[in-house]
Amino acid sequence: MKFKVGIVGVSGYGGGEALRLCAGHPSFEVTYVAGESSAGQKLIDRFPGIGALGGLTIQKWDAAALPELDVLFASLPTGESKEPLARVSAKTKIVDIGGDHRFVDGWTYGLADVWPEKIAAAMRVANPGCYSAATLAALAPLAAGKMIDPNSIIIDAKSGVSGAGRGGGGTFGFADVNEDVCAYGLLKHAQAPEMTKALSQIGAGQAALTFTPHLIPMTRGILATCYARGKATTADCLAAARKFYAGRPFVRVVDAPPHTKWATGSNLVFVSYAADPSREMIIALAAIDNLGKGAAAQAVQNANLMLGIEESTGLIGSPLWP
Amino acid sequence: MKFKVGIVGVSGYGGGEALRLCAGHPSFEVTYVAGESSAGQKLIDRFPGIGALGGLTIQKWDAAALPELDVLFASLPTGESKEPLARVSAKTKIVDIGGDHRFVDGWTYGLADVWPEKIAAAMRVANPGCYSAATLAALAPLAAGKMIDPNSIIIDAKSGVSGAGRGGGGTFGFADVNEDVCAYGLLKHAQAPEMTKALSQIGAGQAALTFTPHLIPMTRGILATCYARGKATTADCLAAARKFYAGRPFVRVVDAPPHTKWATGSNLVFVSYAADPSREMIIALAAIDNLGKGAAAQAVQNANLMLGIEESTGLIGSPLWP
Amino acid sequence: MKFKVGIVGVSGYGGGEALRLCAGHPSFEVTYVAGESSAGQKLIDRFPGIGALGGLTIQKWDAAALPELDVLFASLPTGESKEPLARVSAKTKIVDIGGDHRFVDGWTYGLADVWPEKIAAAMRVANPGCYSAATLAALAPLAAGKMIDPNSIIIDAKSGVSGAGRGGGGTFGFADVNEDVCAYGLLKHAQAPEMTKALSQIGAGQAALTFTPHLIPMTRGILATCYARGKATTADCLAAARKFYAGRPFVRVVDAPPHTKWATGSNLVFVSYAADPSREMIIALAAIDNLGKGAAAQAVQNANLMLGIEESTGLIGSPLWP
Amino acid sequence: MKFKVGIVGVSGYGGGEALRLCAGHPSFEVTYVAGESSAGQKLIDRFPGIGALGGLTIQKWDAAALPELDVLFASLPTGESKEPLARVSAKTKIVDIGGDHRFVDGWTYGLADVWPEKIAAAMRVANPGCYSAATLAALAPLAAGKMIDPNSIIIDAKSGVSGAGRGGGGTFGFADVNEDVCAYGLLKHAQAPEMTKALSQIGAGQAALTFTPHLIPMTRGILATCYARGKATTADCLAAARKFYAGRPFVRVVDAPPHTKWATGSNLVFVSYAADPSREMIIALAAIDNLGKGAAAQAVQNANLMLGIEESTGLIGSPLWP
Repeated sequence: MKFKVGIVGVSGYGGGEALRLCAGHPSFEVTYVAGESSAGQKLIDRFPGIGALGGLTIQKWDAAALPELDVLFASLPTGESKEPLARVSAKTKIVDIGGDHRFVDGWTYGLADVWPEKIAAAMRVANPGCYSAATLAALAPLAAGKMIDPNSIIIDAKSGVSGAGRGGGGTFGFADVNEDVCAYGLLKHAQAPEMTKALSQIGAGQAALTFTPHLIPMTRGILATCYARGKATTADCLAAARKFYAGRPFVRVVDAPPHTKWATGSNLVFVSYAADPSREMIIALAAIDNLGKGAAAQAVQNANLMLGIEESTGLIGSPLWP
Repeated sequence: MKFKVGIVGVSGYGGGEALRLCAGHPSFEVTYVAGESSAGQKLIDRFPGIGALGGLTIQKWDAAALPELDVLFASLPTGESKEPLARVSAKTKIVDIGGDHRFVDGWTYGLADVWPEKIAAAMRVANPGCYSAATLAALAPLAAGKMIDPNSIIIDAKSGVSGAGRGGGGTFGFADVNEDVCAYGLLKHAQAPEMTKALSQIGAGQAALTFTPHLIPMTRGILATCYARGKATTADCLAAARKFYAGRPFVRVVDAPPHTKWATGSNLVFVSYAADPSREMIIALAAIDNLGKGAAAQAVQNANLMLGIEESTGLIGSPLWP
Repeated sequence: MKFKVGIVGVSGYGGGEALRLCAGHPSFEVTYVAGESSAGQKLIDRFPGIGALGGLTIQKWDAAALPELDVLFASLPTGESKEPLARVSAKTKIVDIGGDHRFVDGWTYGLADVWPEKIAAAMRVANPGCYSAATLAALAPLAAGKMIDPNSIIIDAKSGVSGAGRGGGGTFGFADVNEDVCAYGLLKHAQAPEMTKALSQIGAGQAALTFTPHLIPMTRGILATCYARGKATTADCLAAARKFYAGRPFVRVVDAPPHTKWATGSNLVFVSYAADPSREMIIALAAIDNLGKGAAAQAVQNANLMLGIEESTGLIGSPLWP
Repeated sequence: MKFKVGIVGVSGYGGGEALRLCAGHPSFEVTYVAGESSAGQKLIDRFPGIGALGGLTIQKWDAAALPELDVLFASLPTGESKEPLARVSAKTKIVDIGGDHRFVDGWTYGLADVWPEKIAAAMRVANPGCYSAATLAALAPLAAGKMIDPNSIIIDAKSGVSGAGRGGGGTFGFADVNEDVCAYGLLKHAQAPEMTKALSQIGAGQAALTFTPHLIPMTRGILATCYARGKATTADCLAAARKFYAGRPFVRVVDAPPHTKWATGSNLVFVSYAADPSREMIIALAAIDNLGKGAAAQAVQNANLMLGIEESTGLIGSPLWP
């Protein structure tokens, strides 16, 4: 018997990746998909390469009209999740891929590689933001080990354009984005407080951080380059990370700076470290697929945990290369 | 004394390239720029890298409120040129970069490398479409020399995305366009009749052709790969093209298949040929920058001709590489 | 019990994709991998995202030192397969992804969507070239139905750069390839005779064709735009293709021009048609992933057929989007 | 009368850009070009879009066989400049675009926007590295104004691939670089000491810094995102930069985060700032074309200064957009 799965926001990039993963998940049966602009279409009209699910009709999203589901993945624009998701049956587990429920009462923060037990016990999980997923993967072992000054953290992150969502409009047009890089949201990005709260919980102290996101000309991928003050050596950091993530299936601690391409299409996160104790400088790096570990694949991992099945079910495929 | 120049549609890709070229043109003084969405802004707010013209204010486009100009470049969306340009003073020369006046009475078709004398005598010039500019460059020598069966022509063209204009919306978003190629407008693209008419005039016969445009993941450039029936050898074709274009400053006849990157940012067009007489097959290739020879640079060449100055004035810069 | 699988040329793009697919194949156990430059490394050093197979050591390729295998995938440079593969045990099935055995005696041409029975009976299968895989998918129904003049065929194909293989060197460097398109191999590409032979067999007549490959700035994907003379309508062509491919799991006949992105990472091929009977012109289009249907995924489909298991085993994952 | 100019390393990316700029420079006459692999070719065989200089033959680089030149631009691989350039006539001014003479006795560091007078007096100028050019542009006003703790500086820079030079080989192949981002040279990049020395001189103190370069999938452009401790506000930083660069023609101080595309093909550098005094955090940003301000255009600016002509001669063209 398979779990009945629904996806709302299916025609966006995050929802589409959730669909891809759920369609190939051996314990999931996708029985409900919903969207806005695409409502009324068959899935195959939106996803010409989809397999057996192609005949499913995309529903107009209406939380009151949900069928019985074991788990619902929600990938809605910021600000559009709170009201409708509050009306979903308490018996349906929810993973909110969007940003409305992170560190909100009643919701568990879905940092699956760090807090699997908490997630396993939850009915409502708020998936981490894409930047947070990368950043926290790199910094969690250092924060947990009190190896860095929590007030010294700087995160310089580079993201592919799919993170901006599909309705991007002119600003994200190919001709403008190609052959360009820029920073945005300086000192005020919405994921900075999210990272701060998560790091404070992990490190049991009050973190403060500077976060600068950048848009680079690629479709998928986030690289987070993090800087913090600390006396540890490179070897100390690597050892701490290997211990912290021992047995966690999706975190790879590597000796050289990771490439985002290593993770394309997967739930993997690659972390690495370089330190200069003479300057008390630690560099922590993490590379992910922003739609994978940064969105839909982490969401599926969370759902697996919530449903009590092996957390890597449906997530073991190798990344696409090149 | 410099010619007074105006540009309408300045904030689009074609208009912006016209601005770049006119700003560096030694005989032009840009005194008027107009747009729609950008009206009221200073040029420097729209083009942060612009030089001395930065303080110019973008006007709300209004043909009735034009200052006195020697030449006006119009780069407006299809369907929006006819009515307003009809109201421009007869003393102002116009180059319409848009598609509304090609093969329309009272307008000269601005195929500058083929018909410089006609253009030099004109007050109203319709710039060729970007696909036509490439295609005609490759086929004109063969058509003029009756070397190909005018009913056998197939044009398979590959364009960068800037050709779709700036207001492209989601369809031309980076994440969708990157790592993708598709054909569009099969058997019904607007530039097919334009090419047909031009070829018929050049070849003094009735051409019929099949034209398939493709969108490829790059910003600038068009490569037209043309196929036609004919008995000529490769050497015949190259010789015919070299003779046809003798003394023309912007056409380069080359022995190997040309790259679009050879033309980036310039008014150049590279043409080449390969033929298999045993199958009566001739392949004609042309590579251009779609915003250069395919739009703004050809427009400046046309304006130079109309104003009676050396046609390469302001257009001699080398292409950008890489 | 799983089939024992080997891959030679594993560190190239084609071999790497074969590894990805075999690693996730439920009936395959990869027990042998070999390469040249990478020999001696662990798989995980070459493929940091690989899963359980990471500990496998890449062997120095030596046909004489092969372990017992049910099937061997060979992805070697042109000219380097014939001698070593001749020494492989007759009991080991071989799929040669490279170009040395296409239409060579003793080898079956692995056009899996057209000739599954022939392949199912073979011990030695030569995988089609990437361009041929796309072209033949589009043209096979028309050739089989005698709907096109076999002497009128023109194929204009656009390929991502991974088709050139990994050892590309400077010519395929990012800075040169990005923002560029060019044709190459005019009138003399190695896959033209291959397509000719296959089409002649399918159509039971003597085909002659013109093939022009192009390199475009993307990593994966081939779009073949094919032109031929014929009286059929668009509807006729679509109907013929739907009938020809009825029940074939990987061919999708679609009404609009297909995008290569629809196939990324999959074994799918999308074909479509547009015809103008008044000019007796038929356009046939096919979009594939050049490393999927164009190389490794088709190879796995061939292996499945040869091994007598369901041909779509291990190949049902949805394509990556965006 | 024009200055006689030579370029050695002309077939690389930096040398090629120097050629493009010198070819269009109204006071320069390029009379000598040299290379290694390209020696013996005509310029037009290497640069198909070049104009009047196309007939010039690329010489085998030999410092002993130089003609009389007013200025020589050298763009040679690291380690290959010192010996040959020492043999160039003392009467020939040299701008070394390569890395061998930065902060070497007898050579002036060519930070043209900061030290024009020193450069104007020099016969030997070492052009700044591409990363240094961006970084120093952003930090110089803050260092000069003692607005930042010189020991707290972190530079996170993102570069297009042309910075790696043309002989990149497989690592910089399109299929590997596209859809990827990575950091490299952690805590040990050659340009870190260069930046340190320059900043120490500007700020009259001992700077120490952390520098992390990244490779992103674009051809041209560098964005340097710099972090440092300081109490200044955003407005303080912008005001300091505007004062520091008053009258300097190529530095644009802007209010919003700059895009590298704003500078493509030009000598411009865009700098901006964002500060959070409550955390004593200052972010300084600079965007350049790595081959422009980061190499060849800055070299031409330096040559102009050395030759006593207006420093913007030949450098006033607008950037390419899009």
